[in-house]
Amino acid sequence: MNIAVIGLGIIGGSFCKAIKSHTHHHVIGFNRTLSTAQQALSDGAIDEIGDEAALGRADIIILCMYPRACVDYISQNGKYIKKGALVTDSSGIKRAVCPQLSALAREYDFVFVGSHPMAGKEKNGYEVSDGALFEGASFIITPCGADEKSVETLAQLAADIGFARITLSDPEEHDRMIAFTSQLPHILACAYVLSPCCPNHKGFSAGSYRDVSRVANINSKLWSELFLENRTPLVEELEVLTNNLSRIVDAVKQNDKKTLAALLEEGHRVKQALGE
Amino acid sequence: MNIAVIGLGIIGGSFCKAIKSHTHHHVIGFNRTLSTAQQALSDGAIDEIGDEAALGRADIIILCMYPRACVDYISQNGKYIKKGALVTDSSGIKRAVCPQLSALAREYDFVFVGSHPMAGKEKNGYEVSDGALFEGASFIITPCGADEKSVETLAQLAADIGFARITLSDPEEHDRMIAFTSQLPHILACAYVLSPCCPNHKGFSAGSYRDVSRVANINSKLWSELFLENRTPLVEELEVLTNNLSRIVDAVKQNDKKTLAALLEEGHRVKQALGE
Repeated sequence: MNIAVIGLGIIGGSFCKAIKSHTHHHVIGFNRTLSTAQQALSDGAIDEIGDEAALGRADIIILCMYPRACVDYISQNGKYIKKGALVTDSSGIKRAVCPQLSALAREYDFVFVGSHPMAGKEKNGYEVSDGALFEGASFIITPCGADEKSVETLAQLAADIGFARITLSDPEEHDRMIAFTSQLPHILACAYVLSPCCPNHKGFSAGSYRDVSRVANINSKLWSELFLENRTPLVEELEVLTNNLSRIVDAVKQNDKKTLAALLEEGHRVKQALGE
Repeated sequence: MNIAVIGLGIIGGSFCKAIKSHTHHHVIGFNRTLSTAQQALSDGAIDEIGDEAALGRADIIILCMYPRACVDYISQNGKYIKKGALVTDSSGIKRAVCPQLSALAREYDFVFVGSHPMAGKEKNGYEVSDGALFEGASFIITPCGADEKSVETLAQLAADIGFARITLSDPEEHDRMIAFTSQLPHILACAYVLSPCCPNHKGFSAGSYRDVSRVANINSKLWSELFLENRTPLVEELEVLTNNLSRIVDAVKQNDKKTLAALLEEGHRVKQALGE
């Protein structure tokens, strides 16, 4: 198959490298900054640099841009896409992009299937892309009414390039779960490192500090878009968290060992039940 | 030297194994449950199981128990300790134990130097102890008025068994920094996993979830003691965190992208400045 990857940042670059190293598909790379595409070509991460004609040859198109940019790109380039081609995004939010992309699919006669590769790093850009980034990771698919065969094709490609688990979901469930599993940890990490103690942590810290602060090294432009486009479920999860945090803080303030130990034990039991 | 390790849990067991694998010191293990000490002996983690007479032969005594238990143990067994022996605790809090242990040192004529090995796992007990646990970790020493030679002896032992960094501090600074680097992440992890989304995270999660939730698998008895004995600096850090969290939450609620991006950018800059 001809696979077009639009946007060669960490996710797009990793898709290209993973497809090239695990399959025989022909990879066409598109990037706003030409030098990055040239680098990807010379790395062997892509087989050719794309243009409108190349887009028309693609059997699968993987959008690896900011959420709104995915919609804008297809609005402008939908006319070049081959009839029946499979288009997927890789956005971290789904309610804000899937309905528009499904509507564009009907307009331009291609098939849209939403997806979200659950992998990343605390750095961005093509230079940190990695053909092994998806090894062992989950790949969430939101079919959004697409035919079963297209969903299977995308799931098979994901499995072929290293994803360990395919999760079928819908935009609402996806966005609610992602608010908890991904967005909340990023907000916590940022709030955490704003303590005046943080710049002096070295020599006093270990794994707990490292882990909770890791994702504070955030791409503020991308994540503020992701947070605001997912405002309702995110605010709900933030309220759940601040309520649970308050219960623990109150027990500490009131020197109430029994309540405090019981709250910590609840946390312990959740992790134990998950086998983590 | 004869080194006595009192309490063969994850920390005590790891001290024994690290001392045996990196030095030629003679290790005497003490443990409330005899079968654990027998296991340590048969593993070669200790050279003998200790009793009062053996305590009197120890040149260095490392207390690896809960904070209050360290003080109780020395209150009861101080009379067996050799004059001039070096005693250190390994408690995660210092203001609550160091003054008492320094007073007991004067009473029984030994030398007390506080210390805190910055290493651990989300599991506990001798069975997860590990001779490599301290490799690359920080070892905090609170001299608490002890002579320089004793502090150097302890620092040298720490360096010999794998610690990469020795931090000299006092109980006040230690407890303030630990509230931030260690206690806060444990509280956050527990509050986080109490979300109703948590039991269903699989298939929707990746590194962010894994890292922020890791230490929720907590020993509730130990940590409730640590939190309450360190209440004042911990409550201060919790207030700093909840204030910073509120600023981010408010920006999300008000759909204020500029403020939100600026707050995230602050977090990003803190991590960048630390080279993390």
